[in-house]
Amino acid sequence: MDNARETGSDLNPRFDRDGLITAVVTDAASGDVLMLAHMNAQALALTVETGLAHFWSRSRQSLWKKGETSGNMLAVEDLRIDCDQDAVWIKARASGPACHTGARSCFYRRVTASGLEPIDAAG
Amino acid sequence: MDNARETGSDLNPRFDRDGLITAVVTDAASGDVLMLAHMNAQALALTVETGLAHFWSRSRQSLWKKGETSGNMLAVEDLRIDCDQDAVWIKARASGPACHTGARSCFYRRVTASGLEPIDAAG
Repeated sequence: MDNARETGSDLNPRFDRDGLITAVVTDAASGDVLMLAHMNAQALALTVETGLAHFWSRSRQSLWKKGETSGNMLAVEDLRIDCDQDAVWIKARASGPACHTGARSCFYRRVTASGLEPIDAAG
Repeated sequence: MDNARETGSDLNPRFDRDGLITAVVTDAASGDVLMLAHMNAQALALTVETGLAHFWSRSRQSLWKKGETSGNMLAVEDLRIDCDQDAVWIKARASGPACHTGARSCFYRRVTASGLEPIDAAG
């Protein structure tokens, strides 16, 4: 393990073979996980610079400013990076549903031994 | 997009080319993101079955029961899956530091325009 990467103060993301790190977005108010996406170097730089979450869309293979078309942007309240710098955690204020399905969070189903159960939207 | 996968009640994880999905662990009490790891089918099944978080270690290429050596297990309070079933969110009670560095959370540094800043452990 690269010790400087774990203990240092230099941003040195460990991008995967596709040039990406993982980004987890939580709701700054509720603490709920809203979505999970990926960032390349440019998306990370733009997120830091603008305070709005940017990702790399693997399906479209393009830079993706969250909310650019839907209007549901994610304003960054806090941005953190993990020990080995291959993941970031964004605490955000969401201006609308984070999920493309219209759900507030992408994690709208519970995994149980007998299958998936929808989460009460108020839950 | 596979509609049944997004709206249905069948567990049908979309494993990546390495046979993995991403797992985000948050602290059930504080809502903080503790760690991010990966699961293969067996790790997911064992997590559901035992109520303790299991992962797949990409570095060791082996099944990994979190806390098996450190004692710092993660007891699952809630397990959710996202819209396209390539990520799960575990709300857990942590019996100790989640990070191998000894930190409570792997996300112990803030990303700023001028580099990384350590987070106050009490913060």
